[in-house]
Amino acid sequence: MTVLILTSEQDVTADMVVAQLHERGVPLVRFDPGDLPGEGALSAEYVRGEFRGYLSAGGRVVSMSGLRSIWMRRPNEPAAHAAEPSAWLSAESGQALYGMLDCTNARWMNDPGAATKARQKPWQLRLAHRSGFPVPATIITTYPQVARQFAEQYRHVVVKTVSGKPPSDPPMALPTTLVPPDADFAGVAAGPTLLQRYIAKRADVRLTSVGDEQFAARKVSEPGQVDGRYGDTGHVWEPVEVPARITRAVAAYKDLANLAYGAFDFAEDSEGTWWFLECNQGGQFGFVELETGLPIAEAVAGWLSFTAE
Amino acid sequence: MTVLILTSEQDVTADMVVAQLHERGVPLVRFDPGDLPGEGALSAEYVRGEFRGYLSAGGRVVSMSGLRSIWMRRPNEPAAHAAEPSAWLSAESGQALYGMLDCTNARWMNDPGAATKARQKPWQLRLAHRSGFPVPATIITTYPQVARQFAEQYRHVVVKTVSGKPPSDPPMALPTTLVPPDADFAGVAAGPTLLQRYIAKRADVRLTSVGDEQFAARKVSEPGQVDGRYGDTGHVWEPVEVPARITRAVAAYKDLANLAYGAFDFAEDSEGTWWFLECNQGGQFGFVELETGLPIAEAVAGWLSFTAE
Repeated sequence: MTVLILTSEQDVTADMVVAQLHERGVPLVRFDPGDLPGEGALSAEYVRGEFRGYLSAGGRVVSMSGLRSIWMRRPNEPAAHAAEPSAWLSAESGQALYGMLDCTNARWMNDPGAATKARQKPWQLRLAHRSGFPVPATIITTYPQVARQFAEQYRHVVVKTVSGKPPSDPPMALPTTLVPPDADFAGVAAGPTLLQRYIAKRADVRLTSVGDEQFAARKVSEPGQVDGRYGDTGHVWEPVEVPARITRAVAAYKDLANLAYGAFDFAEDSEGTWWFLECNQGGQFGFVELETGLPIAEAVAGWLSFTAE
Repeated sequence: MTVLILTSEQDVTADMVVAQLHERGVPLVRFDPGDLPGEGALSAEYVRGEFRGYLSAGGRVVSMSGLRSIWMRRPNEPAAHAAEPSAWLSAESGQALYGMLDCTNARWMNDPGAATKARQKPWQLRLAHRSGFPVPATIITTYPQVARQFAEQYRHVVVKTVSGKPPSDPPMALPTTLVPPDADFAGVAAGPTLLQRYIAKRADVRLTSVGDEQFAARKVSEPGQVDGRYGDTGHVWEPVEVPARITRAVAAYKDLANLAYGAFDFAEDSEGTWWFLECNQGGQFGFVELETGLPIAEAVAGWLSFTAE
């Protein structure tokens, strides 16, 4: 039984898991959906109630009936490397590939439907409530007046993107930013705006959960630092124990969201409370493992190798 | 409790359901995601474990806690009508809107995640097998040799798009077409190709299922007509009784796919067998109702109005 890894060619995080799978002697095929059609090829047959399919890449062929698990690491857009790429060819190739993979009994990390839903920030906040996390007060609004009132009520407020992605045309970084007290909120009407109570944090926490396992790392913040993704503070990620309340909440969240993998970000305040900021269902773990030695790649390889008896 | 209808302004099918809801005295709000931000506005608040949200359009405000059901009819892309539209503004607006709607307890016709999965043609074929439909032998392949063998084996074979959509750049109609016996299959390598055994049909059947109800209509074909969507034959849609096997298979399919609504297309062969061609989770029903008088809009209104006691 084979593990299928869907990712682009340059992917150090995938390399770490591939090494672990090799060590376990588990067969794997690495496939970039961007190579379909071209270097990658597929065929699926639906005849007399039977389904047979296979996928080939780099001379390796994998049968759909022999798939153990599928890891959606960082796949390119289908047909991205085609001789004549087009939105239509990507749609056709994506339907053919993911539609065929959905016909198998393989377990997904993560299921594509669960992944799509899990990316929705408003739903994340609601789910975090239900799972028992402390969540900073948040609004998402197109009403300038609602934004102004929220900022007045909480005084220290940050603004973030709703989708979590910065604009790409033109490319632009949008770090989480403190809202100045004299801000003009008129622009809120031009696009939904996410405002959140600012947590004065003493550390960032990244918790990576793989199946039932949880790996947490902590990095001390500079006083007044708002977005830990930008700027080097000289501090490094260190392993940290997970409070019992958080362990339970992470398990509940992943269960409700039907996620096999999730990377949770928290802000640790001066009293040691971990405030839920977000759960990235496809979050990186390579940098955490390299700095902390936490065996996350091994856990991913273990989950992908698992065979129900 | 209010019904939310997500659709564009010009939508006769939605108008038919709106009329039925008015007759029942059920409050409704019609909202075009393309109007957000702009004529449409929203606000969601996640504070101390509580969620409150509302949506406003054309002077009507609907509270998320007062939503009974959501009908995804034919919504525009979020922010499509914005003063400065962009892919990023659409992503932000879509996340804000659909993420907020996912926080409610409203029932969806259809649930967006189920809809996405249900659009995958290869998965439809597999599901049709599992549900007990007769399904014409089909392949989806990028191997010219596999395509050639399939065409030789079945002799009468049609080619279709995989995703069901024609290319839009440049715009092009791609009707289902018979493959000539001397076809050159080399082009199959350039994009996944769907080939299906040709069913010599005497009629097209469109079965519209709403909740537990099924409405079938039948239109006689011209001999040799391949794609019923193109060309006028002079025949009209007429109501037809559903064979028991099909009734059971439709119910099984919708259950497995988690769909509240589905429009099933069949080819009826000379022996009266209904062959599954596809299930369009968002298929039109206006033209069927207008020609047959089948009360589909009433059934949709009924499903949307339902309140669990």
